[in-house]
Amino acid sequence: MNHDHSQNRYDYDVVVIGAGHAGTEAAAAAARLGAKTALLTTNLDTVGQMSCNPAIGGVAKGQIVREVDALGGLMGEAIDATGIQFRMLNRRKGPAMHSPRAQADKKAYQNHIKWQIESQPNLDLRQETVLDLITRPVTDADRSESEHAEFAKQQIVGVRVSGDATYFAKTVILTTGTFLKAIMHTGEAQSAGGRAGEGTTSGISGALNRLGFEVERFKTGTPPRLNARTIDFSKVEEQPGDEDPQPFSFLNDAITTPQLPCHIAHTNDKVHELIRANLSRAPMYSGQIDSRGPRYCPSIEDKVVRFADKSSHQLFLEPEGLQTQEIYVNGISTSLPRDVQDAMFRLIPGLENASIMRYGYAVEYDFCPPTQLWPHLESKSVGGLFLAGQINGTTGYEEAAGQGLIAGLNAARSVAGKSPWVPSRQDAYLGVLVDDLVTAGTDEPYRMFTSRAEYRLLLRQDNADRRLTPYADELGLIDSKRRTRFAEKLEQIKRGRELLKQGRIEGAPAEVYLRRPEVTWETICAAVPELNSIDGESAQQCCVDIKYAGYIDRQQMEVDKQVRLSEKRIPVSFDYERIPTLRNEAREKFARVRPLSLAQAKRISGITPADIALVLAYLGK
Amino acid sequence: MNHDHSQNRYDYDVVVIGAGHAGTEAAAAAARLGAKTALLTTNLDTVGQMSCNPAIGGVAKGQIVREVDALGGLMGEAIDATGIQFRMLNRRKGPAMHSPRAQADKKAYQNHIKWQIESQPNLDLRQETVLDLITRPVTDADRSESEHAEFAKQQIVGVRVSGDATYFAKTVILTTGTFLKAIMHTGEAQSAGGRAGEGTTSGISGALNRLGFEVERFKTGTPPRLNARTIDFSKVEEQPGDEDPQPFSFLNDAITTPQLPCHIAHTNDKVHELIRANLSRAPMYSGQIDSRGPRYCPSIEDKVVRFADKSSHQLFLEPEGLQTQEIYVNGISTSLPRDVQDAMFRLIPGLENASIMRYGYAVEYDFCPPTQLWPHLESKSVGGLFLAGQINGTTGYEEAAGQGLIAGLNAARSVAGKSPWVPSRQDAYLGVLVDDLVTAGTDEPYRMFTSRAEYRLLLRQDNADRRLTPYADELGLIDSKRRTRFAEKLEQIKRGRELLKQGRIEGAPAEVYLRRPEVTWETICAAVPELNSIDGESAQQCCVDIKYAGYIDRQQMEVDKQVRLSEKRIPVSFDYERIPTLRNEAREKFARVRPLSLAQAKRISGITPADIALVLAYLGK
Repeated sequence: MNHDHSQNRYDYDVVVIGAGHAGTEAAAAAARLGAKTALLTTNLDTVGQMSCNPAIGGVAKGQIVREVDALGGLMGEAIDATGIQFRMLNRRKGPAMHSPRAQADKKAYQNHIKWQIESQPNLDLRQETVLDLITRPVTDADRSESEHAEFAKQQIVGVRVSGDATYFAKTVILTTGTFLKAIMHTGEAQSAGGRAGEGTTSGISGALNRLGFEVERFKTGTPPRLNARTIDFSKVEEQPGDEDPQPFSFLNDAITTPQLPCHIAHTNDKVHELIRANLSRAPMYSGQIDSRGPRYCPSIEDKVVRFADKSSHQLFLEPEGLQTQEIYVNGISTSLPRDVQDAMFRLIPGLENASIMRYGYAVEYDFCPPTQLWPHLESKSVGGLFLAGQINGTTGYEEAAGQGLIAGLNAARSVAGKSPWVPSRQDAYLGVLVDDLVTAGTDEPYRMFTSRAEYRLLLRQDNADRRLTPYADELGLIDSKRRTRFAEKLEQIKRGRELLKQGRIEGAPAEVYLRRPEVTWETICAAVPELNSIDGESAQQCCVDIKYAGYIDRQQMEVDKQVRLSEKRIPVSFDYERIPTLRNEAREKFARVRPLSLAQAKRISGITPADIALVLAYLGK
Repeated sequence: MNHDHSQNRYDYDVVVIGAGHAGTEAAAAAARLGAKTALLTTNLDTVGQMSCNPAIGGVAKGQIVREVDALGGLMGEAIDATGIQFRMLNRRKGPAMHSPRAQADKKAYQNHIKWQIESQPNLDLRQETVLDLITRPVTDADRSESEHAEFAKQQIVGVRVSGDATYFAKTVILTTGTFLKAIMHTGEAQSAGGRAGEGTTSGISGALNRLGFEVERFKTGTPPRLNARTIDFSKVEEQPGDEDPQPFSFLNDAITTPQLPCHIAHTNDKVHELIRANLSRAPMYSGQIDSRGPRYCPSIEDKVVRFADKSSHQLFLEPEGLQTQEIYVNGISTSLPRDVQDAMFRLIPGLENASIMRYGYAVEYDFCPPTQLWPHLESKSVGGLFLAGQINGTTGYEEAAGQGLIAGLNAARSVAGKSPWVPSRQDAYLGVLVDDLVTAGTDEPYRMFTSRAEYRLLLRQDNADRRLTPYADELGLIDSKRRTRFAEKLEQIKRGRELLKQGRIEGAPAEVYLRRPEVTWETICAAVPELNSIDGESAQQCCVDIKYAGYIDRQQMEVDKQVRLSEKRIPVSFDYERIPTLRNEAREKFARVRPLSLAQAKRISGITPADIALVLAYLGK
């Protein structure tokens, strides 16, 4: 509506706003596909910044990083190059639960991401402050190009930036993080800003309102950061990393960066008493904040209230890098007033003299409930506008990165006149993520868990490449290096499986022997020495394939059933008014979510098998 | 005036506001002297940031870095640890002109400074936004403690910060850089902020107004940053660094970091034509900015106008680090509109396809004319308040660092009840710097030049330690490592000089032979092999001492004369009204500057020998 005809005009296929974990993956993915892409951020020195904890991965999140890597994303290589402590979580559980996590050298990580972005052909990283989104009414021509345009009222044209300049673009990806109408709270004190010392992104909020986006409010928090020089490490417990750190990226054989230990401190009754005595001064409890925060990443005041019987909570002292004294205190996110934050540490062994470098705070921010998006993360109401990351109500760097990659991929596909591609729930946690978001929305900051995936035995961290790299290759997301490496790995696995069939131990095929729970790969190798030539990762795949064959096959059967339901597509333009017998609630929900398959329709909360049957009956007509 | 009695109260001896080059040196110096020090900055991620060019040193500036190092400061060790190209400028001229300069890995430099600060005992680095300065009226008790308090109306009490908290402090050091009422300009476009993507520091501006500080306005500019990926390096000239890079710090023997070349591109007539055609759109020429900028660091539009006959200017393509594609284009600082910036590069061989990552801009900001300060950088009107860096009207990281060190040192001395210490003009460029500032003020951003020093043959980069480390030791600024190393060097020089006296070449003492211009240290060593045991730095000192003895002695005689004049102290409380025959102009200038010696009085512009004679006559009375 707001065309700018100044001389400062730039033309792109894809413009990405925000260069955090979502924005960088989005821009890199779009550029890899050949789209002429601009990545705009208010401050080039914050590209890829870890605003909260200096770590990548974790339970279910580590799986996402492996998936992002398998799809040619940035995050895996960046953490491999800059990780200072790697740990495979849940090692003692089954392989579906194995979850890689690593502490990062925070500054090195962000430099690495920026460097990858700067080095990416087709991608211009530019320091710009976006003031407004420019749109125009949707035309018949738009509708003829994309069936999704049928529901759009507006079509994106570009963005206006500070300094009288305009970026015209066929698609725009919004990744604003916590910067929309952000307010930070520490006790009674409030200030505007999405991150301490930084501002908000008010122009974009205005544009979203004008364009009729539904907006809600979430909050999240950060813990205080301490100066390591003031910590008595003799009084806290050391937590070493894995002796044999596993890379996140399928491109890497080993981790070569220097490794550091973390440390664990503990809260106690006195700390909890202090917190309870000051609860009325915590913004969440005083009523100063009423938006919802991430349930599974609770503040220390929440923990003390919700787990009133626990007399101690662990605090992980995580170094923020090799050359910094800043320590992130994982487990003590708080918006309590400063004096309480200071006093808490006085009561914790090892931290009695700890000096706070940055106080903890909670931040409230706007997000757009993601049911306003198609599964490929394009807005239903504004064609060509994609949203990814925290703006969709999620929390976590990994969830953001995954969405960014999907948005960037699909923005570039849209520019090229190709139909959207998203992984399905049976393909990837990323499939679960986008399907959950667009089908069910979220009433608290959405975080991935293994329990969200129906087929988690299939969605393992170890096989993310086997699940996704073939798609990535077809989509054009990967280069020949990854293609070759992946093909070699498949070849190794194939050879391993053959050797296991042919080799004999105690008269039976080695394969059969390997099924026994106590038998390891090493035992088998001793009997079938040719297996020694199979590399570690491929050997691991052979082991898992064989040892868990029964479970895997059973899940695969369920998947196959599900696929039949997914294959029953519902057209974007399906008119639910045509089904007079449909309950009003179902009609409203269907019209809002606009499920693209019967499988997705079934997952909408409150939808009954009878509703599905009705839709199925009308689909044929 | 604005006492805060909340629970969020912190007590310090010295509070430093701003953690740039001035603030970090100030805080480190104060803490080294044992003062309980807090260093407050709005964003901990910008500590030690190189806002403009990614380089340290240069002509006269390199000498300052060596002096800061000789006094135990941070800058020398930081650049030695993170420099990516070292060059000794003016190598073919005499030793007084030799000036070290190094490109820095910008991010590594800033991390290194932050880490040094975090690791400094007595020093708390904290993320805080200062909203106001708190003062109280000066009391008789203050006056009895310090003669400088006689002229102060207010005494500093502390600072109020965002988040309802107050830092109480005996002394406060303001190092706000370009952040006071800052406006950035790119062509017709303006935005508020001291650095792109960051805000301003409005609370402090208000406090300075309220306290009656005189405030003026300067401007400075930055060039665009390009993406190296988009530069054709085959079309530009390579500029390698020195083969044997010399460390800045007297603590270091050698540079061990990997080194990179820079490159040189050239403007041409077409570029100059383009600029001339668009001059009316440059804020400096359109009248949009009327504050003065640094004359010796002119914008490209200034160069084209002032050097109209030159058909080409050099552009130095300086990499911002080992792991970034950002290239700082030294020599093309500009506030021309974006379209002109884009178009300029299209016309420069090698840069035809260069992609701008950050546009150049000019920034206008408030500074406090430094004649409002005592030579030790304390405010004359607000006791305990020190100002250092760009707020005093200077430009350059080195000038800022030097002032920071002097302010930090003297704030700590003030807390300890000790009288101020500043180096004299014959001791150091730092002495020239503070004397110039407080005696003459500045009507353009003040930059150091060798020509500003009367005794520049004495103020060489090579002997900064011999000039200043003995003072630093007495002041308590250095540790035993530096003390020992310096003592060993003096011992080596002494031994070298003795060997040169005793050794004989062609019948004459080696010392005499060495005086011949063509004779090098190596020649002498061949004849007097014991000299081989003298280390390189000490050998260099012996050489310079002997070869330039005549010149040095002559300058020393002038200095001795000057010292006699400097020793004629004028009391802080001297009443110029007592000299009825003093010209009004002289009386006003003396009363404003309040020179502390006859030598300083003589340097005030417009002061005549007759004025000095009158003061001298009355001093005895």
